[in-house]
Amino acid sequence: MIANDPIEHLIGLLSRLPGLGRRSARRAVLKMLMDPAGRMLPLAEALQHAAEAVRPCETCGNLDTASPCGICRDAHRDRRLVCVVEGVADLWALERAHAHRGTYHVLGGLLSALGGTGPEDLSIAPLLRRIEEDGIEEVILALPATVDGATTAHYLTDRLKPTGTTVTRLAQGVPIGGALDVLDDGTLAAAFKARRPL
Amino acid sequence: MIANDPIEHLIGLLSRLPGLGRRSARRAVLKMLMDPAGRMLPLAEALQHAAEAVRPCETCGNLDTASPCGICRDAHRDRRLVCVVEGVADLWALERAHAHRGTYHVLGGLLSALGGTGPEDLSIAPLLRRIEEDGIEEVILALPATVDGATTAHYLTDRLKPTGTTVTRLAQGVPIGGALDVLDDGTLAAAFKARRPL
Repeated sequence: MIANDPIEHLIGLLSRLPGLGRRSARRAVLKMLMDPAGRMLPLAEALQHAAEAVRPCETCGNLDTASPCGICRDAHRDRRLVCVVEGVADLWALERAHAHRGTYHVLGGLLSALGGTGPEDLSIAPLLRRIEEDGIEEVILALPATVDGATTAHYLTDRLKPTGTTVTRLAQGVPIGGALDVLDDGTLAAAFKARRPL
Repeated sequence: MIANDPIEHLIGLLSRLPGLGRRSARRAVLKMLMDPAGRMLPLAEALQHAAEAVRPCETCGNLDTASPCGICRDAHRDRRLVCVVEGVADLWALERAHAHRGTYHVLGGLLSALGGTGPEDLSIAPLLRRIEEDGIEEVILALPATVDGATTAHYLTDRLKPTGTTVTRLAQGVPIGGALDVLDDGTLAAAFKARRPL
Protein backbone atom coordinates (compact mmCIF):
# COMPACT_ATOMS: atom_id res chain seq x y z
CA MET A 1 0.00 0.00 0.00
CA ILE A 2 3.02 2.30 0.32
CA ALA A 3 3.35 2.62 -3.38
CA ASN A 4 1.96 0.67 -6.25
CA ASP A 5 3.79 -1.52 -8.68
CA PRO A 6 5.34 1.01 -11.10
CA ILE A 7 7.13 2.88 -8.31
CA GLU A 8 8.32 -0.23 -6.47
CA HIS A 9 9.36 -1.85 -9.74
CA LEU A 10 11.39 1.20 -10.70
CA ILE A 11 13.03 1.40 -7.26
CA GLY A 12 13.91 -2.29 -7.55
CA LEU A 13 15.57 -1.84 -10.96
CA LEU A 14 17.47 1.29 -9.92
CA SER A 15 18.71 -0.24 -6.68
CA ARG A 16 20.42 -3.00 -8.67
CA LEU A 17 22.78 -0.48 -10.25
CA PRO A 18 26.24 -0.33 -8.68
CA GLY A 19 26.50 2.52 -6.19
CA LEU A 20 22.76 2.77 -5.54
CA GLY A 21 21.15 1.05 -2.59
CA ARG A 22 17.44 0.78 -1.93
CA ARG A 23 17.40 3.97 0.08
CA SER A 24 19.09 6.11 -2.55
CA ALA A 25 17.03 4.50 -5.31
CA ARG A 26 13.92 5.59 -3.42
CA ARG A 27 15.24 9.13 -3.08
CA ALA A 28 16.10 9.24 -6.77
CA VAL A 29 12.65 8.01 -7.80
CA LEU A 30 10.90 10.52 -5.52
CA LYS A 31 13.00 13.34 -6.94
CA MET A 32 12.18 12.28 -10.49
CA LEU A 33 8.47 11.94 -9.69
CA MET A 34 8.44 15.62 -8.70
CA ASP A 35 8.99 16.38 -12.38
CA PRO A 36 8.24 13.33 -14.53
CA ALA A 37 8.32 15.16 -17.85
CA GLY A 38 11.54 17.00 -17.09
CA ARG A 39 13.48 14.25 -15.33
CA MET A 40 11.98 10.84 -15.86
CA LEU A 41 11.11 10.78 -19.55
CA PRO A 42 14.47 12.24 -20.71
CA LEU A 43 16.26 9.54 -18.73
CA ALA A 44 14.01 6.85 -20.21
CA GLU A 45 14.76 8.14 -23.70
CA ALA A 46 18.50 8.39 -23.07
CA LEU A 47 18.55 4.79 -21.83
CA GLN A 48 16.61 3.53 -24.81
CA HIS A 49 18.75 5.47 -27.23
CA ALA A 50 21.99 4.26 -25.67
CA ALA A 51 20.77 0.66 -25.60
CA GLU A 52 19.99 0.82 -29.30
CA ALA A 53 22.92 2.93 -30.49
CA VAL A 54 25.90 1.71 -28.47
CA ARG A 55 27.80 -1.39 -29.56
CA PRO A 56 31.30 -2.81 -29.02
CA CYS A 57 33.92 -1.79 -31.57
CA GLU A 58 34.82 -4.89 -33.59
CA THR A 59 38.45 -3.79 -33.73
CA CYS A 60 39.30 -2.83 -30.16
CA GLY A 61 36.25 -3.67 -28.02
CA ASN A 62 35.52 -0.07 -26.95
CA LEU A 63 31.85 0.91 -26.63
CA ASP A 64 30.66 3.49 -29.13
CA THR A 65 27.82 4.30 -31.49
CA ALA A 66 29.88 3.18 -34.47
CA SER A 67 32.16 0.26 -35.22
CA PRO A 68 35.08 0.81 -35.72
CA CYS A 69 34.84 3.26 -32.82
CA GLY A 70 35.80 6.93 -32.82
CA ILE A 71 39.27 6.18 -31.46
CA CYS A 72 40.00 3.49 -34.07
CA ARG A 73 38.77 5.80 -36.84
CA ASP A 74 40.71 8.85 -35.57
CA ALA A 75 43.47 9.61 -38.12
CA HIS A 76 45.46 11.51 -35.47
CA ARG A 77 45.94 8.42 -33.36
CA ASP A 78 49.22 6.58 -33.60
CA ARG A 79 48.27 3.09 -34.78
CA ARG A 80 51.70 1.70 -33.92
CA LEU A 81 50.96 2.03 -30.20
CA VAL A 82 48.27 -0.25 -28.76
CA CYS A 83 47.30 -0.03 -25.13
CA VAL A 84 45.82 -3.26 -23.72
CA VAL A 85 43.20 -2.81 -20.97
CA GLU A 86 41.03 -5.13 -18.95
CA GLY A 87 37.76 -3.35 -19.73
CA VAL A 88 36.11 -0.28 -21.15
CA ALA A 89 36.15 1.50 -17.77
CA ASP A 90 39.95 1.51 -17.83
CA LEU A 91 39.98 2.72 -21.43
CA TRP A 92 37.75 5.64 -20.44
CA ALA A 93 39.97 6.41 -17.44
CA LEU A 94 43.08 6.57 -19.65
CA GLU A 95 41.25 8.79 -22.14
CA ARG A 96 40.16 11.16 -19.38
CA ALA A 97 43.79 11.39 -18.28
CA HIS A 98 44.90 12.04 -21.89
CA ALA A 99 47.51 9.39 -21.15
CA HIS A 100 47.70 7.65 -24.52
CA ARG A 101 47.89 8.88 -28.12
CA GLY A 102 47.60 5.45 -29.75
CA THR A 103 44.74 2.97 -29.97
CA TYR A 104 43.40 0.41 -27.50
CA HIS A 105 42.59 -3.23 -27.15
CA VAL A 106 39.99 -4.35 -24.60
CA LEU A 107 40.70 -7.84 -23.27
CA GLY A 108 37.28 -8.23 -21.70
CA GLY A 109 38.65 -9.57 -18.42
CA LEU A 110 41.77 -11.02 -16.81
CA LEU A 111 43.11 -14.55 -16.55
CA SER A 112 41.87 -15.98 -13.28
CA ALA A 113 42.40 -19.49 -12.01
CA LEU A 114 39.82 -18.93 -9.27
CA GLY A 115 37.30 -17.23 -11.54
CA GLY A 116 37.81 -19.89 -14.23
CA THR A 117 38.80 -17.36 -16.89
CA GLY A 118 41.21 -18.84 -19.43
CA PRO A 119 43.00 -17.29 -22.44
CA GLU A 120 40.20 -18.36 -24.78
CA ASP A 121 37.74 -16.23 -22.77
CA LEU A 122 39.73 -13.06 -23.48
CA SER A 123 40.23 -11.11 -26.70
CA ILE A 124 43.80 -12.35 -27.21
CA ALA A 125 43.59 -13.96 -30.66
CA PRO A 126 42.17 -10.70 -32.15
CA LEU A 127 45.07 -8.80 -30.51
CA LEU A 128 47.62 -11.12 -32.14
CA ARG A 129 45.83 -10.70 -35.46
CA ARG A 130 45.97 -6.89 -35.12
CA ILE A 131 49.69 -6.99 -34.33
CA GLU A 132 50.31 -9.10 -37.40
CA GLU A 133 48.14 -7.09 -39.78
CA ASP A 134 48.50 -3.49 -38.58
CA GLY A 135 52.24 -3.12 -38.05
CA ILE A 136 51.96 -2.51 -34.31
CA GLU A 137 55.34 -1.64 -32.78
CA GLU A 138 54.56 -1.34 -29.09
CA VAL A 139 51.98 -3.02 -26.90
CA ILE A 140 51.45 -1.18 -23.62
CA LEU A 141 49.93 -3.40 -20.95
CA ALA A 142 47.76 -1.17 -18.75
CA LEU A 143 46.49 -3.94 -16.51
CA PRO A 144 45.62 -3.66 -12.83
CA ALA A 145 48.42 -4.22 -10.31
CA THR A 146 46.73 -7.31 -8.88
CA VAL A 147 47.59 -11.02 -8.95
CA ASP A 148 45.28 -11.62 -11.91
CA GLY A 149 46.61 -8.51 -13.66
CA ALA A 150 50.21 -9.68 -13.23
CA THR A 151 49.32 -13.21 -14.38
CA THR A 152 47.65 -11.83 -17.48
CA ALA A 153 50.60 -9.52 -18.19
CA HIS A 154 53.07 -12.44 -17.94
CA TYR A 155 50.93 -14.61 -20.18
CA LEU A 156 50.55 -11.86 -22.79
CA THR A 157 54.29 -11.12 -22.73
CA ASP A 158 54.95 -14.78 -23.55
CA ARG A 159 52.35 -14.90 -26.30
CA LEU A 160 53.57 -11.64 -27.84
CA LYS A 161 57.28 -12.54 -27.81
CA PRO A 162 57.22 -14.36 -31.20
CA THR A 163 55.70 -11.28 -32.88
CA GLY A 164 58.78 -9.18 -32.13
CA THR A 165 56.67 -6.29 -30.80
CA THR A 166 57.97 -4.29 -27.86
CA VAL A 167 55.85 -5.00 -24.77
CA THR A 168 55.79 -2.43 -21.97
CA ARG A 169 53.70 -1.96 -18.86
CA LEU A 170 52.68 1.05 -16.78
CA ALA A 171 55.11 2.28 -14.14
CA GLN A 172 54.30 1.39 -10.56
CA GLY A 173 55.01 3.73 -7.67
CA VAL A 174 53.65 6.40 -5.39
CA PRO A 175 50.46 7.98 -6.76
CA ILE A 176 50.59 11.72 -7.40
CA GLY A 177 49.44 13.47 -4.23
CA GLY A 178 49.75 10.23 -2.29
CA ALA A 179 51.10 10.43 1.26
CA LEU A 180 53.78 7.83 1.94
CA ASP A 181 52.56 6.81 5.38
CA VAL A 182 49.14 5.69 4.20
CA LEU A 183 50.48 3.76 1.21
CA ASP A 184 50.51 -0.03 1.34
CA ASP A 185 53.87 -1.71 1.89
CA GLY A 186 53.98 -3.42 -1.50
CA THR A 187 53.64 -0.15 -3.41
CA LEU A 188 56.14 1.60 -1.17
CA ALA A 189 58.72 -1.18 -1.61
CA ALA A 190 58.15 -1.25 -5.39
CA ALA A 191 58.49 2.53 -5.65
CA PHE A 192 61.68 2.48 -3.60
CA LYS A 193 63.20 -0.27 -5.72
CA ALA A 194 62.29 1.54 -8.95
CA ARG A 195 63.68 4.90 -7.74
CA ARG A 196 65.04 7.17 -10.47
CA PRO A 197 67.72 9.86 -10.55
CA LEU A 198 66.47 13.46 -10.41
CA MET B 1 36.50 10.99 -28.24
CA ILE B 2 36.11 9.01 -25.01
CA ALA B 3 32.56 8.16 -25.76
CA ASN B 4 30.01 9.62 -28.05
CA ASP B 5 26.96 11.60 -27.21
CA PRO B 6 24.46 8.94 -26.10
CA ILE B 7 26.77 7.57 -23.41
CA GLU B 8 27.91 10.96 -22.11
CA HIS B 9 24.33 12.25 -22.22
CA LEU B 10 23.12 9.28 -20.20
CA ILE B 11 25.93 9.63 -17.65
CA GLY B 12 25.07 13.32 -17.32
CA LEU B 13 21.39 12.62 -16.64
CA LEU B 14 22.12 9.81 -14.18
CA SER B 15 24.70 11.82 -12.27
CA ARG B 16 22.06 14.45 -11.53
CA LEU B 17 20.10 11.97 -9.41
CA PRO B 18 20.60 12.33 -5.67
CA GLY B 19 23.15 9.83 -4.38
CA LEU B 20 24.87 9.31 -7.74
CA GLY B 21 27.99 11.22 -8.63
CA ARG B 22 29.65 11.24 -12.02
CA ARG B 23 31.88 8.32 -11.12
CA SER B 24 29.08 6.05 -9.99
CA ALA B 25 26.90 7.14 -12.94
CA ARG B 26 29.71 6.02 -15.24
CA ARG B 27 29.97 2.66 -13.47
CA ALA B 28 26.22 2.20 -13.66
CA VAL B 29 26.14 3.00 -17.39
CA LEU B 30 29.04 0.65 -18.13
CA LYS B 31 27.35 -2.13 -16.19
CA MET B 32 24.10 -1.58 -18.08
CA LEU B 33 25.90 -1.47 -21.43
CA MET B 34 27.19 -4.99 -20.76
CA ASP B 35 23.60 -6.15 -21.17
CA PRO B 36 21.49 -3.45 -22.84
CA ALA B 37 18.46 -5.65 -23.48
CA GLY B 38 18.43 -7.11 -19.99
CA ARG B 39 19.29 -4.02 -17.96
CA MET B 40 18.91 -0.82 -19.93
CA LEU B 41 15.64 -1.29 -21.79
CA PRO B 42 13.69 -2.58 -18.75
CA LEU B 43 14.80 0.49 -16.80
CA ALA B 44 13.81 2.77 -19.68
CA GLU B 45 10.38 1.15 -19.79
CA ALA B 46 9.93 1.32 -16.02
CA LEU B 47 10.77 5.02 -16.05
CA GLN B 48 8.40 5.76 -18.88
CA HIS B 49 5.63 3.74 -17.28
CA ALA B 50 6.07 5.43 -13.91
CA ALA B 51 6.19 8.89 -15.49
CA GLU B 52 2.91 8.22 -17.24
CA ALA B 53 1.09 6.31 -14.52
CA VAL B 54 2.04 8.03 -11.27
CA ARG B 55 0.23 11.17 -10.15
CA PRO B 56 -0.37 12.99 -6.86
CA CYS B 57 -3.49 11.98 -4.94
CA GLU B 58 -5.90 14.91 -5.05
CA THR B 59 -7.03 14.20 -1.50
CA CYS B 60 -3.79 13.70 0.43
CA GLY B 61 -0.92 14.45 -1.98
CA ASN B 62 0.57 10.94 -1.91
CA LEU B 63 2.01 9.63 -5.18
CA ASP B 64 0.16 6.69 -6.69
CA THR B 65 -1.19 5.34 -9.95
CA ALA B 66 -4.72 6.33 -8.98
CA SER B 67 -6.29 9.39 -7.39
CA PRO B 68 -7.58 9.08 -4.68
CA CYS B 69 -4.56 6.96 -3.78
CA GLY B 70 -4.56 3.43 -2.40
CA ILE B 71 -4.35 4.67 1.18
CA CYS B 72 -7.25 7.12 0.81
CA ARG B 73 -9.35 4.39 -0.84
CA ASP B 74 -8.49 1.71 1.74
CA ALA B 75 -11.66 0.99 3.76
CA HIS B 76 -9.59 -0.40 6.64
CA ARG B 77 -7.94 2.94 7.28
CA ASP B 78 -9.27 5.06 10.11
CA ARG B 79 -10.37 8.28 8.43
CA ARG B 80 -10.65 10.10 11.75
CA LEU B 81 -6.86 10.10 12.13
CA VAL B 82 -4.89 12.23 9.69
CA CYS B 83 -1.11 12.29 9.81
CA VAL B 84 0.42 15.48 8.38
CA VAL B 85 3.84 15.07 6.72
CA GLU B 86 6.23 17.36 4.92
CA GLY B 87 6.57 15.19 1.83
CA VAL B 88 5.92 11.83 0.25
CA ALA B 89 9.27 10.45 1.45
CA ASP B 90 8.11 10.81 5.07
CA LEU B 91 4.76 9.22 4.23
CA TRP B 92 6.57 6.22 2.75
CA ALA B 93 8.84 6.01 5.81
CA LEU B 94 5.83 5.94 8.18
CA GLU B 95 4.16 3.28 6.00
CA ARG B 96 7.29 1.14 6.04
CA ALA B 97 7.29 1.38 9.83
CA HIS B 98 3.57 0.46 9.95
CA ALA B 99 3.31 3.41 12.32
CA HIS B 100 -0.08 4.81 11.32
CA ARG B 101 -3.48 3.24 10.68
CA GLY B 102 -5.21 6.42 9.50
CA THR B 103 -4.77 8.55 6.40
CA TYR B 104 -2.19 11.20 5.48
CA HIS B 105 -1.91 14.76 4.35
CA VAL B 106 1.19 15.88 2.46
CA LEU B 107 2.00 19.57 3.06
CA GLY B 108 4.47 19.75 0.19
CA GLY B 109 7.11 21.57 2.26
CA LEU B 110 7.62 23.48 5.48
CA LEU B 111 7.22 27.13 6.39
CA SER B 112 10.58 28.78 5.94
CA ALA B 113 11.38 32.45 6.33
CA LEU B 114 14.79 31.93 4.74
CA GLY B 115 13.50 29.74 1.92
CA GLY B 116 10.59 32.14 1.32
CA THR B 117 7.94 29.46 1.83
CA GLY B 118 4.70 30.90 3.23
CA PRO B 119 1.43 29.24 4.26
CA GLU B 120 -0.06 29.74 0.80
CA ASP B 121 2.74 27.59 -0.69
CA LEU B 122 1.71 24.60 1.41
CA SER B 123 -1.35 22.37 1.22
CA ILE B 124 -2.98 23.92 4.32
CA ALA B 125 -6.33 25.10 2.96
CA PRO B 126 -7.09 21.60 1.61
CA LEU B 127 -6.23 20.19 5.05
CA LEU B 128 -8.70 22.57 6.75
CA ARG B 129 -11.30 21.59 4.17
CA ARG B 130 -10.75 17.89 4.86
CA ILE B 131 -11.09 18.45 8.61
CA GLU B 132 -14.35 20.26 8.08
CA GLU B 133 -15.84 17.82 5.60
CA ASP B 134 -14.53 14.42 6.72
CA GLY B 135 -15.09 14.52 10.48
CA ILE B 136 -11.42 14.26 11.36
CA GLU B 137 -10.88 13.89 15.10
CA GLU B 138 -7.10 13.91 15.43
CA VAL B 139 -4.39 15.55 13.38
CA ILE B 140 -0.96 14.01 14.04
CA LEU B 141 1.85 16.34 13.06
CA ALA B 142 4.75 14.13 11.88
CA LEU B 143 7.05 17.00 10.97
CA PRO B 144 10.85 17.02 11.20
CA ALA B 145 12.41 18.12 14.49
CA THR B 146 14.03 21.17 12.90
CA VAL B 147 13.42 24.92 13.23
CA ASP B 148 11.23 24.95 10.11
CA GLY B 149 9.42 21.82 11.29
CA ALA B 150 8.69 23.40 14.68
CA THR B 151 7.59 26.68 13.07
CA THR B 152 5.21 24.82 10.79
CA ALA B 153 3.86 22.75 13.69
CA HIS B 154 3.16 25.91 15.73
CA TYR B 155 1.48 27.60 12.79
CA LEU B 156 -0.69 24.57 12.06
CA THR B 157 -1.67 24.22 15.73
CA ASP B 158 -2.91 27.83 15.66
CA ARG B 159 -4.78 27.39 12.40
CA LEU B 160 -6.35 24.11 13.55
CA LYS B 161 -7.49 25.39 16.96
CA PRO B 162 -10.84 26.83 15.71
CA THR B 163 -11.78 23.47 14.17
CA GLY B 164 -11.80 21.79 17.61
CA THR B 165 -9.71 18.84 16.34
CA THR B 166 -7.14 17.29 18.65
CA VAL B 167 -3.64 18.11 17.41
CA THR B 168 -0.75 15.85 18.45
CA ARG B 169 2.86 15.53 17.41
CA LEU B 170 5.37 12.66 17.38
CA ALA B 171 7.28 11.97 20.58
CA GLN B 172 10.86 13.15 20.71
CA GLY B 173 13.57 11.23 22.49
CA VAL B 174 16.32 8.67 22.23
CA PRO B 175 16.07 6.63 19.00
CA ILE B 176 15.66 2.87 19.41
CA GLY B 177 19.14 1.35 19.46
CA GLY B 178 20.67 4.80 19.94
CA ALA B 179 23.65 5.10 22.29
CA LEU B 180 23.30 8.00 24.69
CA ASP B 181 26.87 9.25 24.42
CA VAL B 182 26.71 9.89 20.68
CA LEU B 183 23.33 11.65 20.83
CA ASP B 184 23.20 15.42 20.41
CA ASP B 185 22.59 17.45 23.58
CA GLY B 186 19.23 18.82 22.45
CA THR B 187 17.75 15.36 21.95
CA LEU B 188 19.24 14.11 25.20
CA ALA B 189 17.83 17.04 27.20
CA ALA B 190 14.42 16.69 25.55
CA ALA B 191 14.34 12.95 26.24
CA PHE B 192 15.32 13.53 29.87
CA LYS B 193 12.66 16.17 30.34
CA ALA B 194 9.98 13.97 28.74
CA ARG B 195 10.92 10.90 30.82
CA ARG B 196 8.06 8.52 31.59
CA PRO B 197 7.33 6.14 34.45
CA LEU B 198 8.08 2.47 33.73
